[in-house]
Amino acid sequence: MINKLASKIQKTHAPICVGLDPMLSYIPEHILKKAYDDFGETLEGAAEAIWQYNKAIIDATYDLIPSVKPQIAMYEQFGIEGLKAFKKTVDYCHEKDLVVIGDVKRGDIGSTSAAYATGHLGKITVGSKTYSAFDEDFATVNPYLGTDGIKPFIDVCKEEKKGIFILVKTSNPSSGEFQDRLIDGRPLYEWVGEKVAEWGADHMGDSYSYVGAVVGATYPEMGKVLRKVMPKSFILVPGYGAQGGKGADLVHFFNEDGLGAVVNSSRGIIAAYKQEQYAKFGAENFADASRAAVEDMIADIDGALNAAK
Amino acid sequence: MINKLASKIQKTHAPICVGLDPMLSYIPEHILKKAYDDFGETLEGAAEAIWQYNKAIIDATYDLIPSVKPQIAMYEQFGIEGLKAFKKTVDYCHEKDLVVIGDVKRGDIGSTSAAYATGHLGKITVGSKTYSAFDEDFATVNPYLGTDGIKPFIDVCKEEKKGIFILVKTSNPSSGEFQDRLIDGRPLYEWVGEKVAEWGADHMGDSYSYVGAVVGATYPEMGKVLRKVMPKSFILVPGYGAQGGKGADLVHFFNEDGLGAVVNSSRGIIAAYKQEQYAKFGAENFADASRAAVEDMIADIDGALNAAK
Repeated sequence: MINKLASKIQKTHAPICVGLDPMLSYIPEHILKKAYDDFGETLEGAAEAIWQYNKAIIDATYDLIPSVKPQIAMYEQFGIEGLKAFKKTVDYCHEKDLVVIGDVKRGDIGSTSAAYATGHLGKITVGSKTYSAFDEDFATVNPYLGTDGIKPFIDVCKEEKKGIFILVKTSNPSSGEFQDRLIDGRPLYEWVGEKVAEWGADHMGDSYSYVGAVVGATYPEMGKVLRKVMPKSFILVPGYGAQGGKGADLVHFFNEDGLGAVVNSSRGIIAAYKQEQYAKFGAENFADASRAAVEDMIADIDGALNAAK
Repeated sequence: MINKLASKIQKTHAPICVGLDPMLSYIPEHILKKAYDDFGETLEGAAEAIWQYNKAIIDATYDLIPSVKPQIAMYEQFGIEGLKAFKKTVDYCHEKDLVVIGDVKRGDIGSTSAAYATGHLGKITVGSKTYSAFDEDFATVNPYLGTDGIKPFIDVCKEEKKGIFILVKTSNPSSGEFQDRLIDGRPLYEWVGEKVAEWGADHMGDSYSYVGAVVGATYPEMGKVLRKVMPKSFILVPGYGAQGGKGADLVHFFNEDGLGAVVNSSRGIIAAYKQEQYAKFGAENFADASRAAVEDMIADIDGALNAAK
């Protein structure tokens, strides 16, 4: 799957993923109205609106992009109905041949981590049958519990040829509270990055490891260091756009082959029609606004990468 | 809710929670067979077996205990159907007036953390209506992302009078990889513990904070230190029983009022009938074996607390 992600990035010249993190406040009125008319102002109605919104954005952008990153929290808050919309979205993205990065930030130990890995990336056995539950291609994982939390994910990944992105340095303002604290003269995130490289050496694709890292676009200097600490790991880069990251900040997250990073934008793409820049599309044509925002994002990042050559 | 947890512990003399972490391999054959006969060897069949198994254990133990801790990963691996069984279990525990600690170990930033908090502890608005999605009383939360990850949970907790337990020192062998690393001469888990105390001061119940901590039974010396670092925080203590912790190891997790800790046992209770000690009950009477194991656990911990007085 890491090989597929790399080759799709090379084909599209778009080292990006679209963050499918729907909030009801992003969804145009006409979609909400139809969903509430059909299913009421219920969790089912909200889930239907989310699904229709996602579907339109996927339809309008899938040919431009290699991957999507649905944030499960945005679905989980609507309970079972929301998670059905998550699963529908994952399945539909697979139909469109997109690589699906489940932004689930799970992490536990032993059999519990194995259960999360099974649920999101693997297969579960019931009697004599096997099933896939959520069936993403990658999942994001929290490293706080150490190797015991990560190994069960890697075991499932090996079996399924799937991958994980481990939180190393997150994009938020307070990420430094623990992640930047110095241990023997080096920040915690570097120690975590070293472990990512070590864990990743155990599950390699053609050029890159199935074990990647999350490093926020908002910390480009740290990204530069971490690029060298984990040369074989893809870096999933949140924080572009709405959180403040720009293409020019991101060149050092990439390797010289132009690969090694995949930059996420969520609100900046899926709610593009709400920005002044794309307001001309109007709420009715929100998906066209998303397509234009994807094109601009690709141009920004591809341009920055070419300028840095 | 922290006041309710404390008063229920005082009433039952049982500072424990039963970890409802069902695995198909724990579930007696007669329950599996009935569920598969009714729903096939499907995710629905597995979920039905889990639910019937949980229900029997809850029915057999609820009068002895203040709280339960369902581990959502064990349900999530069965996808939507598994999560329906999770929700049914949470609701049934509420019917039995048990405090429900959702062991979800979520953690993200900003609006995403807010979405997790909403989904597990809060209420979601759809049009003019509001709904509860999973509706636990407490949730476990990962601290790696810092204050940005925690505050949205605390905001929801304040509104709902609910609480969280933040991972400080986990029970697993490799928890020390990052958690024990020294920062200015003190291990990371102490710095996290200090933050827990700080965050907790912002949302106090009568005697204890709504913001608690997770500290593994397998590290009693660290528990002793952390008890002093976070005097007003309840400590959720996993790792008793199957993972090796004993009552006598746990006395320093408690304050002098006999409160301040709630000790979890999962496999040791729910799969008690598989242990030599409780084998006499047989698989048919697995729930009675669970009740006996709960009685023994209470005696072990209460005895240790009395001996330490």
